[in-house]
Parts: sequence; structure tokens; C-alpha cells
Amino acid sequence: MNTIGIDIGGTSTKYGLVSESGTIIEQGSIPTCVTEDPQDFVERLKTALNPLMKNVSAIGIGAPNGNYYSGNIEHAPNLKWKGIVPMAELVEQSLKLKTRLTNDANAAAMGEMIFGNAKSMKNFIMITLGTGLGSGIVVDGKVVYGHSGFAGEMGQVIVIPGGRQCGCGRLGCLETYASATGIVRTVKLALETPESKSSLRGQELSAALITKAALEGDELALNAFEFTGEILGRALANAVTFTSPECIFLFGGLAKAGPLIFEPTQKHFSNNLHNIFQNTVKILPSALPESDAAILGAAALIKEPS
Amino acid sequence: MNTIGIDIGGTSTKYGLVSESGTIIEQGSIPTCVTEDPQDFVERLKTALNPLMKNVSAIGIGAPNGNYYSGNIEHAPNLKWKGIVPMAELVEQSLKLKTRLTNDANAAAMGEMIFGNAKSMKNFIMITLGTGLGSGIVVDGKVVYGHSGFAGEMGQVIVIPGGRQCGCGRLGCLETYASATGIVRTVKLALETPESKSSLRGQELSAALITKAALEGDELALNAFEFTGEILGRALANAVTFTSPECIFLFGGLAKAGPLIFEPTQKHFSNNLHNIFQNTVKILPSALPESDAAILGAAALIKEPS
Repeated sequence: MNTIGIDIGGTSTKYGLVSESGTIIEQGSIPTCVTEDPQDFVERLKTALNPLMKNVSAIGIGAPNGNYYSGNIEHAPNLKWKGIVPMAELVEQSLKLKTRLTNDANAAAMGEMIFGNAKSMKNFIMITLGTGLGSGIVVDGKVVYGHSGFAGEMGQVIVIPGGRQCGCGRLGCLETYASATGIVRTVKLALETPESKSSLRGQELSAALITKAALEGDELALNAFEFTGEILGRALANAVTFTSPECIFLFGGLAKAGPLIFEPTQKHFSNNLHNIFQNTVKILPSALPESDAAILGAAALIKEPS
Repeated sequence: MNTIGIDIGGTSTKYGLVSESGTIIEQGSIPTCVTEDPQDFVERLKTALNPLMKNVSAIGIGAPNGNYYSGNIEHAPNLKWKGIVPMAELVEQSLKLKTRLTNDANAAAMGEMIFGNAKSMKNFIMITLGTGLGSGIVVDGKVVYGHSGFAGEMGQVIVIPGGRQCGCGRLGCLETYASATGIVRTVKLALETPESKSSLRGQELSAALITKAALEGDELALNAFEFTGEILGRALANAVTFTSPECIFLFGGLAKAGPLIFEPTQKHFSNNLHNIFQNTVKILPSALPESDAAILGAAALIKEPS
């Protein structure tokens, strides 16, 4: 049987028909929030999915602030829908198919486990380095949801008390440093020093542009990657003490910078890892193709043992 | 059927015959490391346990640096036995009973789940505040051991990079601040300021003495508790983002200081907790009587679903 994987993003929602082996047979996308009414979204989704409904057993949804237990999207800051939206229930009622929902990083972790590099792993952590930093923690072959349903929010670990202002209202959260927006902030701060020379001065900054500058040898850009890797490597070394993963996968925009981000992260990870965990844990890139990962991850959600 | 619970400590090893309902029917203790030969210990243990072997189905052992998967005690710094000691195997061979072993904090978590305040909980964290800081993390009703068997080493989270020297060789680990020895170090540092007034000046410092001074209103002692609670509360708020527990239990010597440690810990925990987790998690004292906890915890190890 096939499944439908749906990835609800701030701007657009991607969906795909996924075979049991993890092939996306057909896919498409619709705008997410045309109106503030989630029911309107569900109607448009139903129309869009109609041609894909071939031998489908269930639907999996990844969404920001998605709660696995309730199937709700709760207070997602980047969506027009306000408050608590019972999305899994709305989709299930409309499409008459079993529907599960979780947050996007948990969905990516499921995708890695079912279709990616974590196929044989029981304990690993998935880190998504996008606009923010998301994480999905797998223990004993199952994604950890915890008591609240919101476990695995490593982007919200305070790594520097009194540090950078985070969108959550607190200061010094990991994602204010280690993410696409985090590295942009790091470069902006460095450029405030008038004597710092960089090809990035006066540019519209983005993680992609900083990566390009670093690859061309721009020292300020290289230092920004080193700093990002220092903060991330330390945080990952601390993370290991909680669930002792076999592997930590890095995924998303910033992970595509390859050795620029992996090398400093690995160095500071190893330097800060407790002896007892040395040689028990690897840091690797995700095997999921980025364009398909969200759909595959959401589809994989249905495959979790319950 | 009864079980035997064994708590291997640096100086002495406690053991008890535990009923299914969690009553210690009989108990005793022997010195741990009389010689450097663990086989000698096992022989003495067998002799000591002989009168307790009534309707016994299995043996559970809590030990420093105990690995649940291998049953080994690995490089325990406070024991005379060096290297890797296959303790579960040695005991099983000698006493001809199924034997499981884990570290002491994991055993305490099991004890809390089977006999204590976590009876109805599926997700919680046990923090033991003794000489060091130990932790046992329970997810979905099972203690997390992770890939290495050493998951739940929260005392080894680096909370202040470049901070206090830890026995592990690194700097700034949580247990160098939040433990019985941590608060002693905090007071010693404060006393280095010549103008600081305190009844503790010139005393042989201990957590118990600092507690007594704080209860009598000694400002330096009270500040030490405030600081300890700040470090611990922050670390616990970060911990919640990983596994989203329903409760964090504090156990051990320092936890007995009651409101002196619970109040600042709770305050800084709440101040640093991400909104999404507010009102989902409590900090409570353990329900296990300290004198019996280690034996009950070790006995409870046998009851874990495998």
C-alpha cells in the first residue's frame, strides 16, 4: 500500500504519493495559508490530492509545532492559522484516511530511519539546520515525543545564558547561533567591526552567500563557520550524554555547506565529548535528498510501530 | 518471587532481599574492594547472601560506571578494581541466578518507577545529587541506555565552557557545580574573598554543614544554595527539551536540604523553560527512603520489561 506524505511549510505545502519502498510516485504543492481558516486549506488539499489517491492506506503530515499525540498544530509562529489547529483530525475527516502528524524535524528523523542512512540504527539524532534548528531524537527505534508530545526541541537549548535574542522570547538558544539565520547574524556582528575585511560587506546576506564566500577563502566567512561549528559541536557533545546516539545526522540548508560546517562541528564535538562516549558516535550528513525529505519523512510517520 | 538488590559503592556494598511489593525483608553490607581482585569480592558476596536466598528469582546490581548491555563495570574511578570488570557475569556464574547490572542513577530511576513516586509515569528524569550528579532518564516507561549503554550522564553536561575542573578531565561539567562536592567548592571560592563573613569560615566544609549554616541564616551559605539552584535549574530546563519528562525527581544528600535547594532550582527552571513546556513538568523530591533506595533500585532493575 502507498501513503501520502505532506509537508506543511510557512509558505507552501508539498505533498507526494510514496510507495512502500520510499519512492515518490507523484508529487505537487499548494500555498499553505491563503486564508486564516484551516478548513479552507483542507478543502484545497483534498482537491489537490484527489488525482494521487491510488491504493493509499494512510496520510502522514509534518508541520511546524506539530504535536504527535494530539495531531494539533499549536501556536506555530510562521503560519497564519492562530492558536491550536486540529489538523490531523480535519484531514482525517475530510479524506477518510488514518492521519498522523508530527513536527518537521521528527518527520525527517522518521524519514532517515525508514528510507535513509539510519535504516539499521536504533538510537540516533536528526538535526535540521534550516531557518531554525530542529531535532528529532530516536531511542530504541522510536521517535521520542515525551510527556508533552514536544520532545526533541534541541534548537531551544540555551547554550549561552544572556546570549542572542531568540524568537521564543528567551536569550541564547542554540538556533540563534547554529542555523541559516544564526550564521547570518554571526557575519552581521563581525561586519560591525569597521576594520574587518570581507567580500560580504554591503551584500544581502544569506547562508548560501556566506558559504560561497567561505569557499572562495573569505576569512570572515570562514571564521563564521568555525564559530558556528564550535557552538554546534559543543551542544551535540552535551546532547550525547542524554540518549547516547550511535549517529547524529545533519540535514538542511546549512548542512549542504559540507566540510565548512562538518569539520569545525566534528572538531569541537570530539574536544568536548566525555571519554566514555569517545568512538561510540558519528556525525554524518543525512542521506535524504533535500527536495524529497519532507514528503518521505511525513510518509514514514505512518510506519512507526505504535 | 523475591529478588536480591545489590548496591556497589566506593567503600561498602549493600544488599537486600526484596519482596515483589518492594519491602526489604532482610539486608546487610560488606566492604567493596578488600583486594584488587573482583573474584574475591564475588566470593565474599556469595557467603554474605547465602542466608538471604529464600525464593529468589534474580539479582539486580547498581554500580558506578555500570553498563546495562554488557553487565560490566567499566573504569570506575572510585573502585580498586581496574579496567573492565564483567561483574554481572561473575555474579551470575557464582550464584546461578539471572543477574542484571546498571549504573546507580539508572537503578534509582527504576526504583522510583516500580516502588516510588513515578509509579504512574512513562516519562521522567531521576537526578541523584550526591558526591557527583547522576541521572536516569525514562522514556516511554523504559530507562534509556542508548547505543553505548551509558545514556543518562547529565552530570557530564558542560554547563560553563572553561569552567571548573571536573574529574573527567574536562572543564565546567554540571556536577562540578550541582552536587554535594559542587556546593562545597562554591562556598570555598566565596570564602576566598577576605571580607565575606560566614560562620563557615575555618570549618571542615560539607554539604550537611552548609545546609545547617543556611538554615541558621548564614548569607554566604544561602547564596551558595541560590547559585547551585541557578546552575541546576537552567540545566534541567535544557534537559526538558530533549525528552520532555512529566517530572524531574531530585534525590540524594543535597536534595535533603529541601526548600534551600528546591526553591532556587524551581525558580531558575521556570525562568529558563521554553513556553511550550510550561506547566507540563514538575520538580519533586524522590519518594524513596535514602537508606533503602539503592537496594530497591537495584532489585527493580529485574522488573524492567526487556
